Amino acid sequence: MFEDERKIVLDKSDFSEWYNDVVDVAGLSEKRYPIKGMNVWTPYGWKVMQLVDSIIRRECDATGHDEVNFPLLIPKNEFQKEADHIKGFDAEVYWVTHGGLNELDVPLLLRPTSETAMYPVFSLWIRSHNDLPLKTYQIVNTFRYETKMTRSFIRVREIHFFEAHTCHDSFEDAERQIREDCTIMDRVGEDLCLPYLLVKRPDWDKFAGAVYTIGVDTLMPSMKTLQLGSIHQYRENFSKPYDIKYEGTDKEFHYCHQTTYGMSERLVGAIVGIHGDNKGVILPPKVAPFQFVIIPILAKGKTDMVLEEASKLMEEMKAMGYRVKLDDRDQRPGSKHYDWEIRGVPVRIEIGPRDIEKGTLVFARRDLSTKIFVQRSDLGAEADKILEEVQGELLRRARQIIADGIRDVDSLDDGVKLLEEWDGVIRTHWCGEMECAEEMEKALDKTFLGFPMKDVDSGEEEKSAGNCMFCGRPTETVVMLSKSY
Amino acid sequence: MFEDERKIVLDKSDFSEWYNDVVDVAGLSEKRYPIKGMNVWTPYGWKVMQLVDSIIRRECDATGHDEVNFPLLIPKNEFQKEADHIKGFDAEVYWVTHGGLNELDVPLLLRPTSETAMYPVFSLWIRSHNDLPLKTYQIVNTFRYETKMTRSFIRVREIHFFEAHTCHDSFEDAERQIREDCTIMDRVGEDLCLPYLLVKRPDWDKFAGAVYTIGVDTLMPSMKTLQLGSIHQYRENFSKPYDIKYEGTDKEFHYCHQTTYGMSERLVGAIVGIHGDNKGVILPPKVAPFQFVIIPILAKGKTDMVLEEASKLMEEMKAMGYRVKLDDRDQRPGSKHYDWEIRGVPVRIEIGPRDIEKGTLVFARRDLSTKIFVQRSDLGAEADKILEEVQGELLRRARQIIADGIRDVDSLDDGVKLLEEWDGVIRTHWCGEMECAEEMEKALDKTFLGFPMKDVDSGEEEKSAGNCMFCGRPTETVVMLSKSY
Repeated sequence: MFEDERKIVLDKSDFSEWYNDVVDVAGLSEKRYPIKGMNVWTPYGWKVMQLVDSIIRRECDATGHDEVNFPLLIPKNEFQKEADHIKGFDAEVYWVTHGGLNELDVPLLLRPTSETAMYPVFSLWIRSHNDLPLKTYQIVNTFRYETKMTRSFIRVREIHFFEAHTCHDSFEDAERQIREDCTIMDRVGEDLCLPYLLVKRPDWDKFAGAVYTIGVDTLMPSMKTLQLGSIHQYRENFSKPYDIKYEGTDKEFHYCHQTTYGMSERLVGAIVGIHGDNKGVILPPKVAPFQFVIIPILAKGKTDMVLEEASKLMEEMKAMGYRVKLDDRDQRPGSKHYDWEIRGVPVRIEIGPRDIEKGTLVFARRDLSTKIFVQRSDLGAEADKILEEVQGELLRRARQIIADGIRDVDSLDDGVKLLEEWDGVIRTHWCGEMECAEEMEKALDKTFLGFPMKDVDSGEEEKSAGNCMFCGRPTETVVMLSKSY
Repeated sequence: MFEDERKIVLDKSDFSEWYNDVVDVAGLSEKRYPIKGMNVWTPYGWKVMQLVDSIIRRECDATGHDEVNFPLLIPKNEFQKEADHIKGFDAEVYWVTHGGLNELDVPLLLRPTSETAMYPVFSLWIRSHNDLPLKTYQIVNTFRYETKMTRSFIRVREIHFFEAHTCHDSFEDAERQIREDCTIMDRVGEDLCLPYLLVKRPDWDKFAGAVYTIGVDTLMPSMKTLQLGSIHQYRENFSKPYDIKYEGTDKEFHYCHQTTYGMSERLVGAIVGIHGDNKGVILPPKVAPFQFVIIPILAKGKTDMVLEEASKLMEEMKAMGYRVKLDDRDQRPGSKHYDWEIRGVPVRIEIGPRDIEKGTLVFARRDLSTKIFVQRSDLGAEADKILEEVQGELLRRARQIIADGIRDVDSLDDGVKLLEEWDGVIRTHWCGEMECAEEMEKALDKTFLGFPMKDVDSGEEEKSAGNCMFCGRPTETVVMLSKSY
């Protein structure tokens, strides 16, 4: 687990290279698998991902979603039932054409997402209004034949994916679901210390088959937006071709309204990119495989005593429900500090002979590099407190990145000028004409991220009086442009 | 969740049909997916599988295995490095030949098992004897292009799979690992109420690439054996072609010794097949999504009071750590009993106005259909006790199936005669000649299951004085023949 990392100097001012390096040296992902963009989840990276998954599961279970697991392979004919959907994915799916030595009668594809796997079965499961709403989710591997440059967690070809699929008896109930999805995102984002924007995508960038798409976007320190997730309103776009109908209280059959909500391993990519520094990654306490690492400070003649106390401390903290690692390797403490800083353990605990005598411990914070003495007798309260403080600080910093990374600009000239020295997200107004959009994108060298939502609850977009950035016509439509991953 | 099941009469005397029916009506798996043998994990079935997985994870973590997650797709050239392995799997892998609209330069296959995905990476991870033993596992979906008839959980084309892969500095340490694997199986089997046999496979039936294979076999009520798992000794068979070497304390490089251990969703198939009865499935308490279902017995004017007490009871039991469901549907209790019997909830709790007055509850056992009154004040102790009793009874019954299902037979004539009225597993002697094996298989219409192991710890096969069943030559080799899934 601890190899070779000392050779690399981390420098976050070159974000792109720093990101790749820090994923490597923190041991979060193994990129040397013989297929590009298909990476190996290492034990440490996989634990982070599983902790993220457990937060998502907690939220889905609390909101009455049932976890299911659908097959990976989808027959070509099922995939082709919704026309826009095929067009959107045709160029990026993997095809299975042979089983053993035989060519298959019907080619199968690896799910890029599971609409076309689930909906033929939903049409069997749903009979009456009593079966609605149907709220399901799964956490699975999905596949995209990426031709762009790949990057761990952010752009990969095998994707660790969460997808919720719901069916409703009305458009209104589907809209209610979308607001619930936003509140789920709120709690997930809070636990992961990831602030985000809800941005409705422009029509030309919505999900293949959707009526509208809300992107869940965060901002990386590179000033590029990263889509962490997306929420889609399908109305009856899929229920019609897949014949998902229910018998209403009126004894008539109606098509279901559907929504989906997706998130992926990009959540881990955002954690790495946003919180890390030149010492390595910094993991939010709620998803850190180890929240505390105990480093015994050994002294001649007292080694056994210190190790014994350190071991007791670990057991005590585990019994309290913390995730704790005791690093009892035969190495100098400085070298151990270094190793665990790279891996982003939120709090290091030092315990030496004098601490034991005095009944104290040293807590060292990864985020601020500060140390405090705590009374051993206050262990539980102090441990809770310091984790909360780290949590708060990581959130604060990430919010600052967003606050610093979005600027309101009225005119194209101002925008172009601003971008000479700053490369963040532009918020401005747009009249709705495609030509203006194209001119704005060209002049700013950014693309339409979309229309920021007013808040989580209303489902409405932000509106304000202004003028189209390109043509100057008055409009209330607020729009954001960014460079994005 | 509760639909249509009343139409089917379950009759376990026709095991094969009963099995298919009970999987359906208990809502454990959805077979109507448009690819045969690729089934949908329903919410209920998936919860059982996840509980089984959590037991496996608990055991792997306790024995120092690290969980990893390797890519699904394997390049053809990596797959072909170990000659026996290819031969074994060539006819049953799915091939990905196209990405988007392009033909891939190197065809990719869907992992049937992950040796050839992991070992190129192990050769990068392992450098020195300090890296050994390397003990990893993953829980993933694997694929086999089955041409035989498929059956939920038992023979499917997408398989929910556990695989442990370990690397060692010596044959002896690899052998120690195999004994550890057997102790893991012991604890998993105990929790799932699944007794089993450890049977070393004959050479012609070992895993493709293995030096030897130990099968973990249980016996279904159909008298056919079901392989629940398998443990493989590879020696250096894979480390040589995949170049997995370590620098020893002698400063020389040596090839690693390797082992693997696999189990699958067949564990769920065995639970269904072995424990179920004509009322439905019976789930062992440790993997039952609900260990208790509370059925309020309502009475005029007291409905609210009973529902409130039932709800309190549920919260109390959840806080104690039990998995509990309150069935407050507006239906007759008899109909609810029926529904939960089918789904195999180990204990039903009835609570009505008189119970509340007297401070009692009724516990009804799914396995024996017995009822007892318990004092509400003894809730925790009584709940623990009844789950233990159900656990004990399920194990006892399953052991009885094995005890009744294996018979010692000396001569082929005796064997043939016995099989006129009984169709279980034959234990006998074999001289080691292939010709004798073939004659035995033909005459008995069974195949060599293999050589039963003496015990978990020794790693030795059972030996006893006897004569080859076919040729009569004296031999100590004990062998079992069976029909198997």
